[in-house]
Amino acid sequence: MLTMDVVQLRFYVAAPMALINHRFQLTSRPVGLVKRSDFTYSEAPVADPGEGEVTVKVRYLSLDPAMRGWMNDAKSYVPPVGLGEVMRAQGIGEVIASADPKFPVGEQVLGLFGVQEYATLKTKGLRKVDPKAAPLPVYLSVLGMTGMTAYFGLLDVGQPKPGETVVVSGAAGATGMVVGQIAKIKGCRAVGIAGGSEKCDYLVKELGFDAAIDYKSQDVKAGLKANAPDGIHVYFDNVGGDILDAALSKLARHARVVICGAVSQYNTTEGAKGPANYLSLLINRARMEGFIVFDYAERYGEAARELAGWVAAGKLKSREQIVKGLDTFPESLLKLFRGENTGKLVLEV
Amino acid sequence: MLTMDVVQLRFYVAAPMALINHRFQLTSRPVGLVKRSDFTYSEAPVADPGEGEVTVKVRYLSLDPAMRGWMNDAKSYVPPVGLGEVMRAQGIGEVIASADPKFPVGEQVLGLFGVQEYATLKTKGLRKVDPKAAPLPVYLSVLGMTGMTAYFGLLDVGQPKPGETVVVSGAAGATGMVVGQIAKIKGCRAVGIAGGSEKCDYLVKELGFDAAIDYKSQDVKAGLKANAPDGIHVYFDNVGGDILDAALSKLARHARVVICGAVSQYNTTEGAKGPANYLSLLINRARMEGFIVFDYAERYGEAARELAGWVAAGKLKSREQIVKGLDTFPESLLKLFRGENTGKLVLEV
Repeated sequence: MLTMDVVQLRFYVAAPMALINHRFQLTSRPVGLVKRSDFTYSEAPVADPGEGEVTVKVRYLSLDPAMRGWMNDAKSYVPPVGLGEVMRAQGIGEVIASADPKFPVGEQVLGLFGVQEYATLKTKGLRKVDPKAAPLPVYLSVLGMTGMTAYFGLLDVGQPKPGETVVVSGAAGATGMVVGQIAKIKGCRAVGIAGGSEKCDYLVKELGFDAAIDYKSQDVKAGLKANAPDGIHVYFDNVGGDILDAALSKLARHARVVICGAVSQYNTTEGAKGPANYLSLLINRARMEGFIVFDYAERYGEAARELAGWVAAGKLKSREQIVKGLDTFPESLLKLFRGENTGKLVLEV
Repeated sequence: MLTMDVVQLRFYVAAPMALINHRFQLTSRPVGLVKRSDFTYSEAPVADPGEGEVTVKVRYLSLDPAMRGWMNDAKSYVPPVGLGEVMRAQGIGEVIASADPKFPVGEQVLGLFGVQEYATLKTKGLRKVDPKAAPLPVYLSVLGMTGMTAYFGLLDVGQPKPGETVVVSGAAGATGMVVGQIAKIKGCRAVGIAGGSEKCDYLVKELGFDAAIDYKSQDVKAGLKANAPDGIHVYFDNVGGDILDAALSKLARHARVVICGAVSQYNTTEGAKGPANYLSLLINRARMEGFIVFDYAERYGEAARELAGWVAAGKLKSREQIVKGLDTFPESLLKLFRGENTGKLVLEV
């Protein structure tokens, strides 16, 4: 048995040499919505792991609205993806070759693998995940960055108090659904804004939101007036544009507006639309604040434990929408900008 | 002598009966810039003071950009001025008839007198001022609401730390000039944005700002890049519009944007322009916060003492621009929206 193990290990270490990787390289900066022609889908041999590196067979990739921003050649909280580079993406995969004893072959890991089938990379920044504790895609969703984003954005930036009204846009999206559920856990009234009656029903009937406003069929201002009669105490914004403006017009005094994203603005070719009602911040002595989840890295453990506890207690539900096939990446990503996802959008490689 | 005093007192109490008041009543809601025809300039007998009231001969009136907002029929931090009511204004005047022993005839008082020559009103809310300690108009300026606004807005909302860069727009205006000077007192770098080389020279040479950007002749973004090379830590906004957008594009990480006003937007007839660069709040983990000075009423004493101390120590300069004649009110007010004032605009009645 010992001999066989050794043989097997050597086989795994050597295996990448024979493997071919498929990948999406960003080769032009998108204008407006992402197009397949902005990428080059190419193949290349899988590299051997060097000292302190592993090769990972990617199984799931996180699809996020923020990816659109990474493609622009603009100063932001991370450098843009360079032209010719593999498109940046977080994922989960299995170590298939290792030159780091802390990450042996067979381990399931979370990391910034990129939109490709195999990634050979430093183990610094990788995190082990336990497939027995939760299905792997959940580590990209409620138990992953998405959950952390909702957790720190709502609790640290938004600072909701029991009895307050929390309104979240993009409420049926990956982050929004967690925000509303945490708001409920914390004793707040949770109101979601989402597109379509199916999503709105899901929020109220499945996730326990107090109310949902369908921006496709309802007037959002009127919906907020009806469902946040004392005004909005915390508004968690994922979308920007007209919905942000509607929410600003209904703030309670000393409200907190958490800027998490602006999915309605990422593909604009005419310059972003600023919130015309921003003077509501003055009238209501309110604040609008942005945040980046990476700043909370030292507290990820705290959030992960608390989120996992809520999941285990049945207080926090996770939902992933799995799309299949690496080669569908450009079209799958567009679902996020067309509102075609409910829950976390995950690409199964 | 005793008899004469009594006679004189009775004369003063009775005097208003014989006096004629001139006043500006708001009689139509302005569209765009204020016009004389939005008001009715009328006369009426001066009313006798009732129990707990005084009659004040108004000497100086504070002209403020916020007045434009009070004329709109919209929910705000104070109710709008009603049609037919005397236009709201803060002022300083002399008590000429009194039915409240705490405010005897001859006292100089600060209050919400309205745009008129005489005001008969409750003494609740009046504040005595000492004409020997400072010229009366200064109580409407650095030692008044304007100074308080700068003090609480910069220090409480903006929370500048020594060595940080504070940028203020409308810097040669009543509030802006105080903001920059307090920033210097607190060990910050102070950069002002103002219109015209005369104002900019005044800020740097007279008030000790580190730099000034002339938005009429310079590119504001380029000016900010040159004069706030580490980014803006505190941006105190009095103007809104393109200048707010320029400042947002140059924020330092964890910047604080203090929304005090938006003089460029008060007269718009096409809906306010929202700050298109608001996502800089996200990228830079920054916050934008509004405030209303009235919320700090309990701490006015603290601010007044500190401001007076700085004035006495020669660290804080006051400047008032006095315009004369109650009947010039509509045109005098427009100076604020045309950038024609340096320092606090005061109407001498």
